[in-house]
Parts: sequence; C-alpha cells; structure tokens
Amino acid sequence: MNQKNALIVSAHSADFVWRAGGTVALYAQRGWNVHILCLSFGERGESARLWKRENISLETVKQIRREESEQAAAILGASVSFLDCGDYPLRVDDETLFKIVQVYRDLKPEFVLTHSFKDPYNFDHPLANHLAMEARIIAQAHGHSPHEPVIGAPPVFLFEPHQPEQCEWKPETFLDISSVWEQKYQAFQIMGAQEHLWEYYTRVGLQRGAQASRNSDKKIKYAEAFQCVYPRVTDDLL
Amino acid sequence: MNQKNALIVSAHSADFVWRAGGTVALYAQRGWNVHILCLSFGERGESARLWKRENISLETVKQIRREESEQAAAILGASVSFLDCGDYPLRVDDETLFKIVQVYRDLKPEFVLTHSFKDPYNFDHPLANHLAMEARIIAQAHGHSPHEPVIGAPPVFLFEPHQPEQCEWKPETFLDISSVWEQKYQAFQIMGAQEHLWEYYTRVGLQRGAQASRNSDKKIKYAEAFQCVYPRVTDDLL
Amino acid sequence: MNQKNALIVSAHSADFVWRAGGTVALYAQRGWNVHILCLSFGERGESARLWKRENISLETVKQIRREESEQAAAILGASVSFLDCGDYPLRVDDETLFKIVQVYRDLKPEFVLTHSFKDPYNFDHPLANHLAMEARIIAQAHGHSPHEPVIGAPPVFLFEPHQPEQCEWKPETFLDISSVWEQKYQAFQIMGAQEHLWEYYTRVGLQRGAQASRNSDKKIKYAEAFQCVYPRVTDDLL
Amino acid sequence: MNQKNALIVSAHSADFVWRAGGTVALYAQRGWNVHILCLSFGERGESARLWKRENISLETVKQIRREESEQAAAILGASVSFLDCGDYPLRVDDETLFKIVQVYRDLKPEFVLTHSFKDPYNFDHPLANHLAMEARIIAQAHGHSPHEPVIGAPPVFLFEPHQPEQCEWKPETFLDISSVWEQKYQAFQIMGAQEHLWEYYTRVGLQRGAQASRNSDKKIKYAEAFQCVYPRVTDDLL
Amino acid sequence: MNQKNALIVSAHSADFVWRAGGTVALYAQRGWNVHILCLSFGERGESARLWKRENISLETVKQIRREESEQAAAILGASVSFLDCGDYPLRVDDETLFKIVQVYRDLKPEFVLTHSFKDPYNFDHPLANHLAMEARIIAQAHGHSPHEPVIGAPPVFLFEPHQPEQCEWKPETFLDISSVWEQKYQAFQIMGAQEHLWEYYTRVGLQRGAQASRNSDKKIKYAEAFQCVYPRVTDDLL
Amino acid sequence: MNQKNALIVSAHSADFVWRAGGTVALYAQRGWNVHILCLSFGERGESARLWKRENISLETVKQIRREESEQAAAILGASVSFLDCGDYPLRVDDETLFKIVQVYRDLKPEFVLTHSFKDPYNFDHPLANHLAMEARIIAQAHGHSPHEPVIGAPPVFLFEPHQPEQCEWKPETFLDISSVWEQKYQAFQIMGAQEHLWEYYTRVGLQRGAQASRNSDKKIKYAEAFQCVYPRVTDDLL
Repeated sequence: MNQKNALIVSAHSADFVWRAGGTVALYAQRGWNVHILCLSFGERGESARLWKRENISLETVKQIRREESEQAAAILGASVSFLDCGDYPLRVDDETLFKIVQVYRDLKPEFVLTHSFKDPYNFDHPLANHLAMEARIIAQAHGHSPHEPVIGAPPVFLFEPHQPEQCEWKPETFLDISSVWEQKYQAFQIMGAQEHLWEYYTRVGLQRGAQASRNSDKKIKYAEAFQCVYPRVTDDLL
Repeated sequence: MNQKNALIVSAHSADFVWRAGGTVALYAQRGWNVHILCLSFGERGESARLWKRENISLETVKQIRREESEQAAAILGASVSFLDCGDYPLRVDDETLFKIVQVYRDLKPEFVLTHSFKDPYNFDHPLANHLAMEARIIAQAHGHSPHEPVIGAPPVFLFEPHQPEQCEWKPETFLDISSVWEQKYQAFQIMGAQEHLWEYYTRVGLQRGAQASRNSDKKIKYAEAFQCVYPRVTDDLL
Repeated sequence: MNQKNALIVSAHSADFVWRAGGTVALYAQRGWNVHILCLSFGERGESARLWKRENISLETVKQIRREESEQAAAILGASVSFLDCGDYPLRVDDETLFKIVQVYRDLKPEFVLTHSFKDPYNFDHPLANHLAMEARIIAQAHGHSPHEPVIGAPPVFLFEPHQPEQCEWKPETFLDISSVWEQKYQAFQIMGAQEHLWEYYTRVGLQRGAQASRNSDKKIKYAEAFQCVYPRVTDDLL
Repeated sequence: MNQKNALIVSAHSADFVWRAGGTVALYAQRGWNVHILCLSFGERGESARLWKRENISLETVKQIRREESEQAAAILGASVSFLDCGDYPLRVDDETLFKIVQVYRDLKPEFVLTHSFKDPYNFDHPLANHLAMEARIIAQAHGHSPHEPVIGAPPVFLFEPHQPEQCEWKPETFLDISSVWEQKYQAFQIMGAQEHLWEYYTRVGLQRGAQASRNSDKKIKYAEAFQCVYPRVTDDLL
Repeated sequence: MNQKNALIVSAHSADFVWRAGGTVALYAQRGWNVHILCLSFGERGESARLWKRENISLETVKQIRREESEQAAAILGASVSFLDCGDYPLRVDDETLFKIVQVYRDLKPEFVLTHSFKDPYNFDHPLANHLAMEARIIAQAHGHSPHEPVIGAPPVFLFEPHQPEQCEWKPETFLDISSVWEQKYQAFQIMGAQEHLWEYYTRVGLQRGAQASRNSDKKIKYAEAFQCVYPRVTDDLL
Repeated sequence: MNQKNALIVSAHSADFVWRAGGTVALYAQRGWNVHILCLSFGERGESARLWKRENISLETVKQIRREESEQAAAILGASVSFLDCGDYPLRVDDETLFKIVQVYRDLKPEFVLTHSFKDPYNFDHPLANHLAMEARIIAQAHGHSPHEPVIGAPPVFLFEPHQPEQCEWKPETFLDISSVWEQKYQAFQIMGAQEHLWEYYTRVGLQRGAQASRNSDKKIKYAEAFQCVYPRVTDDLL
C-alpha cells in the first residue's frame, strides 16, 4: 500500500491536541497515517487537576493521561505511542533518541510537526524540538544502522506555543481547519483536566482563522498556524 | 478571458533579470501575464559600462537601458513598463505612488515580487520594496478611488539581493527554474554592460539549485530563492 | 489643579478603541486627563462599510468617523482631537509635527501610548509611531520654542497591532482592564462599521487576560498588553 | 511571620556582588530575606589572584572564596548558601537541580535575579541562567514532590554581565541603588582578588545611574540595570 | 602629496568629540587629513546650557557652537565644516545630500565614521547615518556627475551612541586611544555646555579600554569602540 | 623557535577542507603551524559514498576518512589530529573537553577557526562550536591545571556553513585565498566521496571573491569568509 505518513513529536501527551489537533484530523481524513509520538505523559507538570485527588500515585496519573491521549488521538483519526521519558524535566538519553530515529526510518514521514525552538515557560518543549530535529538528521545518515535505507528531507513545522510572542515563535503558514473543528473540539473535551484551555484554544483557532482570512482572499473560520524550520521547495509560489 | 497576472516591482531596469528572470519565464510559460514595473532605468548607478563612452548623455543611457530591458522582458515572455523616477537616488512622490497603486488595481496580481527590506549597498532597493508594499496596501483601501474595486491580499516575495547575508535576506522558498534556465541566461546576455554578472548569477542559480535539492527529495539544477513577507495560507502544508 | 495627563497618539480615529480603550478608561476613572490625538479619521483605509453607501463623499465619511470617535472617547472618559492628515497614506509635514510637539508641551504627559514600530499590513501605523516619538524628542529640546519649558522623559508604550507576531511586537507589560471592560466593549459598539472586530478584540482581551494570570499570581479576566520603548526606572522591581 | 523573600542565583561566589549587590542591599534594608545561592565558588576560573600563591590547594581557594562571599553577603544584609558544583566548567546533575527547586519551594521568592542568557566569555553564566529558570518551572509543577505546595510565577530579572553588548543583554529596568552604594562598595572591597573590578563596577554603577536619570525625571547617581525575562503584570504602567 | 583622508559625518557639532575624538586625534597624529562634516550645530537640541542665557538668539547659539566645534577639531588635529541643516529635527534635501556626495568625491576617504543605525532618544543620529551611507553610494555611481571619477568602497564604522544597548549598537572593533587621550579630554573641555558629559565619556573610554584588554593580550587604558557596517576585506585575520 | 600557531576545530574530518582550506594553506605558507583538530571522522553522517560498498565496516570507513583527511592536511601544509568522538550524533564528555583544553594550552593559538553557532541541518557543527569556545574559556582559567600557564584571548572565527542564511551565519571578514586556491582545490580532490561538493565549494570561493572585491578596492578571485565571535582589538581600523 501507499499510505502517506506524518509524524507529530509531542513533549507531553496533550500538547498535540491543543496545538495540532486540526492538522492531525485533516490529514487523517485525507487518508494519511498520522502518528503522534509522546515523549512523556505530562504527568508531573501538566496534570494539576489529577494531583488534587487524594493519594493518587504517579503511575495512576500516567495511566489516566495515556488513556486520555489515546482517546483524543482516536477522535482525530491518528495513532499514538509513548516513550515515557518523564517530564518536568524531560530527560532523554541516546538510546531513546535512536528510538525516535527508528520511528523516522519506519514512517518516512512527508512532514513533521513539533514544538517551538524556545519556551521560557516550559523547558520540555524546546527539548522536544531539539530531539525531533536531531533524530531527523540522524535518520538521514547513511552510517546510522547502515543496512537500512535513509530518509529524505521532510519539512518540519513548529506548532503554536501557549504564549507565542514570549517564545519568539512566528506564524508563517496557516492551515484552514474549519472542516475538522468539531473533531478538534471533541478531542479537547477528553482532556478533562484542563477545561479553561478549551476556551483558550478555541479562541486561538478563531484568531488564527481571522488572520488567515486577512492574508488571503478566503473566508476561514478556524486555522492552525505553524512556523517553518526549513525553506519550502516548490513548483508554485502560491 | 481569465489570464492570471503577476507583478514584479524592480528598482532599476535590469534587476528583474538577475533576481527573478527564471520565475518570470516560468509563469509566462504557464500562460500568465507577468508584468515588470521598472521604477528607474538604473541609468546613473548601474550603467558603468555605458558611461565609459565619450560624451554619452543621460538620455542616451536611459534609452539604451530601456531597450535592453524590453528585449530581456520579451525573451522571458513578460511585459514591461517604466516610471522613470531616477536612480541613485531613486525618489518617488505620491503621484507616482498612486500610479503604482493603479497598476495593482488594473492587474490584481496573484503574487508580487520585489526587493529586500534592507540593502546597505543600494538604497534604491529598499525604497522599491517600500513602494511596492505601500502601493499594495493603498490598493486595498476602499476609500482610495472609491469607485474602483479594491484588490485582495496577494503574497509578496522578496527576490535575492547581490550580497544576501549583508541584506539580512533569507531564502524561504525555492522555485525550480531549470526548465527555463536557457531563457534566463539569454536574457543575461542582453545586459551587455555587466558581463561579470552573467557568471555571478549563473553560480547563484546553481547554488540555490543545490540547496533546493538538499531541502527536498528532488534533483534540481537551477533555482531562484525568495523571502516571504506574509504568512502562507494553504490547504496543504507541503 | 494637579490633574495628571496621558497622551494617546492614534493613526486613525478608531485605533485607540481596540488597542488601548481599557487603559484609557482605567486612567480616566482614576481622575486623569487622557487625551487622544488622532492623526487621521481612517477615512480611506478603515471605513469599508461606509464606502458601500452610494455616493457618499469623503467629507461625510470623515464626519461620521469623527463623531464615532468622539462618542467612543466620551464613553471611555477621554478627550480627543484630530489633525486630519489623511490616511492610506498618512502624510505629515513638519508644521504638523510641531503641532504634536505642542501637544506634548501643553500636556506634559506622564506616559504616551502609540503604535508598533513595524506593521507590514499598514504603513500609517509605524509612521504614527515615528511621529509620536520624534515629537517627544523635539519637545525635550531647549532650543525648540525656547521660551517654553521643555518636557521630561515620559515612557512610551506600544499598543497591540492586529497581527502581533507579523509586526515583531512583543507584550512586555500587561495591564488588568477587567474593571473597565464594559466601557471598552460599549466603545466597540459605537464603531458600527467593524462588527467582526468586536469579537476579535474581545478575544484579544481574554487571551491577554489569561496570559497576565499566567505571568502573575492574580486572576485576571481581561488585559491589554504593551511593548515598552524605553527602560523602566523604578524604586521597586515588582 | 510574613517576611518577603528574594532569590539570587549566582554561578560563582562573587558574581552577586558586582552585578546585584545594590539590589540585594536595598531589599535587605527594606526587611526582606534576600537569599543568595552560589552554584560554585569560582575557584578555578575567577580566583587568579589566589592561584598566584605558591602551592595553594583547590580546597583552600574554595574556603577563602566562601569566606569572602559570606562576608560580602553579611555586609549587604543577605544570607548565602553554596552548592559547590565546580566551575570552568560548571556542571549540574538533576539531583542538584532538584535542590535548587527545593530552595524555590522553601522560599517562594517574590522575584529572582540571575545571569544573562548568553555570555561568550563565560559558559557557567548562561548555564546558571538555565538552571535558575528550569528549577523555577519544576517548582511550579504539581507532580514534583506532590505533597508540597507549588510556587507561583515570580518574575526573573537578569543582572548585568561584564561585557553587556557581547552578551546580547539589554537594560530594561533601572533600580536606583544610590542609598545603598556605600554597602555595595564595602562588599567590593572584601573581594580582594579583583581590585581592578572595584573601579570597573563603580563606573558601571555611575553609567547606569546617569542613564536612569535620562530615562526619568529623577536625579539618580548609582543604578543597577536588569533585563526582564517575563512580561510585567501591573495595575500601573509607571 | 599623498595624504590619506578620513571622513567623520556628525549630526551635531559636538558628537564627534565624545564619540570619535580619540580616533580623529590618532589618525591626525599619523599624518592623515581627518575631516569632520557637521550636519548641524546641535543648536536646538544639544545646547541647553546656552539657552539659559537670557534673550540669546538662535544665531548666537549656532555661532558659539561653531566656534567650540572648530576649537575642538583644532585640538584633535582635524578640519571641520558645517552644512547648517538645522537640528531637532535635522532635515536634509537632495541638494544637500549631493554636497555630501561631493565631499566623498573630493576626499576619497579611506574610512568613514558616523552614527548608529538606530537611536530612540535622538532621530537626527540615524538620519545622519542614512545620509552618510546614501551619499557614499551615490558617490560610487558612474552616472552621478559623470565627468568626475567615482570613489571606491571605504569601510564605514559606527561610533558609540549615548545609550548603546538601547540603540542596538554593538562594539565590534576597539581602537586603543590611550596615546591621544589627553587631546580627547582637552577637546571635551572646550564643550563648556556639557560638563557632566566629560565624566560620562571618560568612563566610557575607561570601560572600553578594559574591554579591549579583555579581548586581546594587550594592556589598554582608553579605547573607542565601533560597529562595522560592511565586512572587512583583509590579508590577515588578526 | 618562535613559530606561530593557529587552531582549527572541525566536527568531521572533511569540514576544514571545504570551509577553511584556503586560510589553512595561506597561514601554513607563511610559516605558521596550523593544527586541525577533528572531533570525529564524519564516519556515519558524511561518508554516504563509502557506505555503498558492500559489507564495509565502521572501522574501515573511519580509517579511509582518516587517511583522506591526513592527505588533505598535508596538501594544505597543516598538521591534523583526531579525537574519534563519533558523529551523528557527536557526543563529548568532560574528559575529552579537557583534551581540547590541553591542545589550547599546548598551542597557544593566535586564532581559532570553527563552525557556526547554529546549523539546522547538522547538530554536530554547533556542538563543535560550543566545545571549541568552552575549551578556550577553560584554558584561560588559572585554576584549571594550575601549574600550567593560561592562554590569552585568541580571536575565534566561524567558517562558512553549507547553507549560510539558514544557519544565521554572516560573513564579516573576507580573506583573499587566490594565491593558494590550487592547493585548496587539490585538497578537494582527495575527498573522493563528495565530488559534487568540489563544484559547490569552488562556486562558494568565487562568490566570496566577487563579494570581497565589492567590499574593497581590490580585485580578488577567490575568498573565504568568516563570522567574528569577539570584537577586534586593533591599532588600525583598516
């Protein structure tokens, strides 16, 4: 078969929902295999609600977060896997890095989505960016597991951080996600812990939609925005 | 008829050849009307060869430059017009700015190419950038010549300056121009004054081609590179 | 009397509502004289709705925009004046610049709000920034109208542009405007022409409020954000 | 009791004197508990004078540096502790990082001072910055030592590096330290090793004082300058 | 004779003393003709002391400033001329621009010193930078006064603004001026109006000297620092 | 003897040829000892050609790469040593860092060449930059191996990466290498694996030569370009 792949590298198990859920759903709808790789469950730093439960254990937090993440991925039409590297701080050794390389080699993704280069509120995010990019480079090296074919040069897009200007992140590409907004919003609702974020990221979707309209002659209600790491190579400027 | 338009705003009458000749030829070949608007003839600052002729007059220099420019445009399949604003320094009043606005209104271009934001070697180039962008904004204003329809939001791409790093210009989009390279090189040869530039810009084409190959899985011999002013709005990240 | 003054320099007659209406209302409520100086009415570039009326004249557009602006200022508790310099493009000669200098000298404002340094969608905004800053500098010069006292060094804050990341604008100070939100929203409603903007800037207020909460230990619903031009001089870091 | 806390994270045991001694003394004078956390003694890289003594041991250097640092802290009215992580290069494992997290949790500081993001002359300084910021983020995570209360969002200010422009550090807040200058200068004198620095940092104090005066309507003799990491959240723009 | 020339383009008649007086004296001492071109006298914005004299006229202020400037230039061993374009705001038409071009053509300077690209405290300074650079470019154009020989490509260095970090100015080259410090300080003393600046710029000289020492293996007491506009072309990296 | 030293820190065993071969040859020709320190052989990531050989082992690849590198260094007149740290990813522990420190202490180089700060295509390059700079700083510390003399402050230059604009690298110094071009090109030819790079870097040499000519009054055919890490300290601006 000839199914195309996309790869999402997410520091914590919920990031992909808020930041790239529309893109995931859109490409899944188009028949792509969209695979989400979660480096951690966000169990320590992004599960405040769960830690309010008396005597909850770390393992239980991780289990709940995993289940939520799997449900959200299912709603979006994507597959998901977890590396369980820990969070706050995320720490990744080379053995794990090579697992990410293997994901690249197995999927040969057409494009990759990951976090911004900087985030002064969250050091796991830039580290996830670094890992996603370093693994891509190693996957291109002929001398890494030399019996395997290397990958090409898939473009890397950086999805929107929580406070974009503070992260020196700039929207350079807008993708219209209006047709899959309902799915994205359903995926939000799985993430029970973080209800105030439903509204926050609904507004992000609307603002980016309004801006996408301004930058085109289209009427776009919801959009997701991405920064581009590499130059685009194209036959058509538009 | 339904011919699509592109607009090139060139400070001097030869800039479009070196910096965007391939893109011009490519879109012309695809049936577009590509229109080149030259703000000056480059008569004072970019005609060193001609000024070596004894007793040559400014008018003669301008005339020769105009003819070369028209020939080059013809080779590339484009139309060309001239505003004759003078160069070194280029100076443009609001009346002329409104002429550029009118070109936008008449053409409703799908995209616009112009110079970089900065150029410490050439102050006419950033001014051309400013004019191209200001005219585009005014052409969008409902109260400017209110009886006319306004334009939409055509993307603006900045073509490559002579010393890219010194101009803080960054290649963000590569267009494969291999199929029209011969035309571009023929247009070079019209520009008799600047033979050393033929080689210089042939090498630019090859370097950008090699880089375009590196950033994709394609084999590209010649490319032109552009910086993007506005975010891209798209249905497809690739 | 000893009333304190603040000065808002607005390129068009509605900018201050969307971008600084909360701050205006907050300081007015505190007993300050907040004065809004509109360089133009936004008659050509920001009055699309009015131009749909058949045979409307430029003068009528300006008159309606002036009235809306006066009503909005009244709701916010501020005074407003107009320089009628034209828009799209805004053009200001030195005589007008000196009028702005005079406003500085007359008011001796404690702080100044104006537009961002850059805006690739709107060239009147950066020009307003430039004028507000240049007038401030001239108002400090002992040899300008040497019989008058000079002003001190009021801080200058840049209010939020429509597409902040594209304007290289960064929120560096958040002001809680929750207590005056109703006034700000009433002022929105005067601006009949631009209904979609009511929602857009309501969302801006909520996003900035959420971000202000994240950057403090307070619960803030609505905020306005500003970039700082000059360093802060203080007795207290907090 | 209700004493407020401030935290200074200093790569070497003398950095806080030159770069933040005035701020330390000022807040101590106001009744705050100002705690200085020294990651190393600067024993290898910032003790050239001591290494001139024949046969001096690393332990002796560290002991002398510790004593000087304690004396300087006492003069400034602050407490000080040491993590003894080594310098040139500073190296910190996660166990030590969690000790810094614990300091945040214990102190719940109102603000934090640390080094600049970059320093091409000293790689311990940016690492101290990174640790101070990463520890702050982890101290905010509900799942880190979940039985303990998390901290809020204390602002982080970056004190002045030795060659500010080379470090891409920008003074964004000036604090008037004239009233405690004598204490700061006394603390300088404890640092016997580095006499030429007394004059250097006296001049820094005077230059920043002169600049603080220029940016306000006050007459300020000595100031310390800081870059701000996070946006300010405030009720008052001034 | 074969005397080498250097050109200093100074917005106001005192700038060259504070910012480049050492370099001027050093090259004058080496037998160069160093020519200072003052675009204005700084009569409105930099003569506060003079405006305190009762009933002093603008012409008298200009006359005094001219005389001080001539005396300072003489002490430094340089020639000086004045274009009297006015200050706060400096305004220059093309006719005056062409006079600056003529200075370039007449002097064929080996290098040029002028102001920084930005200065949020002083808009005459960036304009002087722009004029110095634009005139240099026009002087290179074969079609400008085509009967005259064009100039080559003299490097342009930007001298130190009053608040360097706020001006985004970076010291990239340090010149040891210790041997001519006495002359520079004597020139300071001519500038009676601005006594507090004597000390300020003495400290600047010492700080830049200390930094120059740190960046070399030399012992340098006083230095001047410059930002470089163009890349250096050299036979020797050191 | 009094031979001067230069140090090249190269991530992989071929980098120095493409990026700094001319400078190496030029200084070797002038009688300097130019020492090249290769952190890895580029065995995994930069030996695609070799990996096409059936059943080739990692050790054989490294051996071939070492030999090529030694031959190229010999042609250029330089010495070379290898740390064999591995590539894709390069990983260096402190023990190895201290070996680099020892090279600095042994050589006391007059200048250092290494990679750019950033490279989104190659993470070994920025790491080599970091190591070269960190080792230099440690070699300056009196308490590191305190019995040894410390080094001074050799300037560090960053040679040209493969896609300069994407690496935020800027040419700030051009060195004319025309006189040693033949040697550089011979060294290219040793690098059998990467024939397409011969042409690519020949064009780089020609483009930088043309740019060097533009920035001077010299006629330069081939040049190498460098970014400067530290400010230049000089007696002569030119």
